[in-house]
Amino acid sequence: MIGVLLEGGTPSVRRNLSDPRPGRGEALVGLRLAGICGTDRAMLGGYAEFSGIMGHEFVGEVLEAPGSPDWVGQRGVGRITISCGACRPCRQGRAGHCESRCVLGIRAKDGVFAERFCLPAVNLIAVPEPVSDEAAVFAEPLAAALRIVEQVRVRESDRVLVIGAGCLGQLAARVLAQSGCRLQVVARHEKQRSALEALGISWIVEGEGQTKAYDLVVEATGSPRGFESALQRVRPEGMVVLKSSLPAKTQADLSTVVVNEITVLGSRCGPMDRAVRWLAEGKIDPTDLIDARFPLQEASAAFVRAAAPGAFKVLLNG
Amino acid sequence: MIGVLLEGGTPSVRRNLSDPRPGRGEALVGLRLAGICGTDRAMLGGYAEFSGIMGHEFVGEVLEAPGSPDWVGQRGVGRITISCGACRPCRQGRAGHCESRCVLGIRAKDGVFAERFCLPAVNLIAVPEPVSDEAAVFAEPLAAALRIVEQVRVRESDRVLVIGAGCLGQLAARVLAQSGCRLQVVARHEKQRSALEALGISWIVEGEGQTKAYDLVVEATGSPRGFESALQRVRPEGMVVLKSSLPAKTQADLSTVVVNEITVLGSRCGPMDRAVRWLAEGKIDPTDLIDARFPLQEASAAFVRAAAPGAFKVLLNG
Repeated sequence: MIGVLLEGGTPSVRRNLSDPRPGRGEALVGLRLAGICGTDRAMLGGYAEFSGIMGHEFVGEVLEAPGSPDWVGQRGVGRITISCGACRPCRQGRAGHCESRCVLGIRAKDGVFAERFCLPAVNLIAVPEPVSDEAAVFAEPLAAALRIVEQVRVRESDRVLVIGAGCLGQLAARVLAQSGCRLQVVARHEKQRSALEALGISWIVEGEGQTKAYDLVVEATGSPRGFESALQRVRPEGMVVLKSSLPAKTQADLSTVVVNEITVLGSRCGPMDRAVRWLAEGKIDPTDLIDARFPLQEASAAFVRAAAPGAFKVLLNG
Repeated sequence: MIGVLLEGGTPSVRRNLSDPRPGRGEALVGLRLAGICGTDRAMLGGYAEFSGIMGHEFVGEVLEAPGSPDWVGQRGVGRITISCGACRPCRQGRAGHCESRCVLGIRAKDGVFAERFCLPAVNLIAVPEPVSDEAAVFAEPLAAALRIVEQVRVRESDRVLVIGAGCLGQLAARVLAQSGCRLQVVARHEKQRSALEALGISWIVEGEGQTKAYDLVVEATGSPRGFESALQRVRPEGMVVLKSSLPAKTQADLSTVVVNEITVLGSRCGPMDRAVRWLAEGKIDPTDLIDARFPLQEASAAFVRAAAPGAFKVLLNG
């Protein structure tokens, strides 16, 4: 089968990959659509030191599910973390932080940029009829955006700034807008601004707006400089939520964190079931964020497109 | 009068400084004892870019207080932040984060390493009779330690690690021990370990103990490496409290903050009144942490002593 293999930080399209066989409890899924995200792009720079088939954002159709035959033929999206169920975090209900976890296309588990792939059936979430493939493929990044409001109680009176108006920043803004907070988004590109305007979300340009003024700043730039900017924007005793996949070593102004008693909160994967529910209820329509679609065999061109300034979501067809 | 002047990051003892005159609402205080802390030492490396008389930890006797004559003759310690009372943080009761604040011996206000100094009378806290000068001079760093439990609710079941067993680490450990939590302290020096042992507080050496295991890690090393160590020790979704005055640019592993969804909380000055109360009630006796005493004119030797590995609090006599 065709798939996108990452080796030594370099991706390549392979046409002769052997078909995966579902392990115990796993389902074999046929790819319908996959999304390229910032983490995938960071992995091309060596992030996560992963080797294998890339990709973790998908909507697919279950082809085989030996232990859960009801799944066959259904459309699904998937939780990307595969947990052991036995370690301390797992026992405490924090399976996302399983000590021996595998992560689809990121850590010790082949991912979804392939015609077919396997994951545990318990990781699947069914996609209800009215949700299109084009919307469902956003479930994973939407869940990551929903993670913010799972971690932080956002109030209507809060002044909130999202820095970065790429795909994740857009989804974070849409989630935060639902809380009724006083929201602004730092957007660099015209297309990003248009998308925000269409939803009535206020945007500013870099350098505009107040410093030390926001109760909550969400950093979604994918750039190490985003953290610096966030520290300048957040008020003393305010909070910065870090969403970007950043390199292990980043220059950071920890002095400002101490002096202004800022809370910096890391934020990763979120509730996939809630994301699917939001899509099904139409609370969010992410399909305006589709930038381009490529067939799997043109993944290299897709990566180039995804790296273009201001690019939204680039999809790979199954 | 004699005082320690910092200019261009270099301190010098001056014998001919002009006597300060109390401004409106200010008291003139005669120094009894001052303490040298990590922030003072960081300022010798350029931290805070301050020029003027150094020092902010003190116990003194009020010599003049034109607006508050009852203060004259009383012993006092002082809140080091001088706030405007009018800006947004001040109006919200967060005067420590006043937008136009001065900070004694740190920002735009001469400090206490001098025979006499001025500060607003409202910043003074009376030291009750049973509290010795030697205990009272610890009120400011003790307040900084108390700030941790003002910001974070520490539970008995929490596994807590304090990294760094210098003066601030020792005080933080003593405050945290009162919460009944499961406390350990990373201590590098024999003297630090003895001080902990005398109080029944458990210590470990660097590299010992578990990684990713602590619910709360307090970073009090004064070194940029302390943050890295804290990130290795804290459990996923745990909290790191940063107490050190660090340089503006530090290499930080923000990727671990995101992936493990860690909360990093900056923590600065704390409740001075509560610190004095703890000292008066004997909840904490910090006097075993006195390393050495020097007269003001020997401040240079005192700074050298304070920089010695494992040194506790070095005091300057008024």
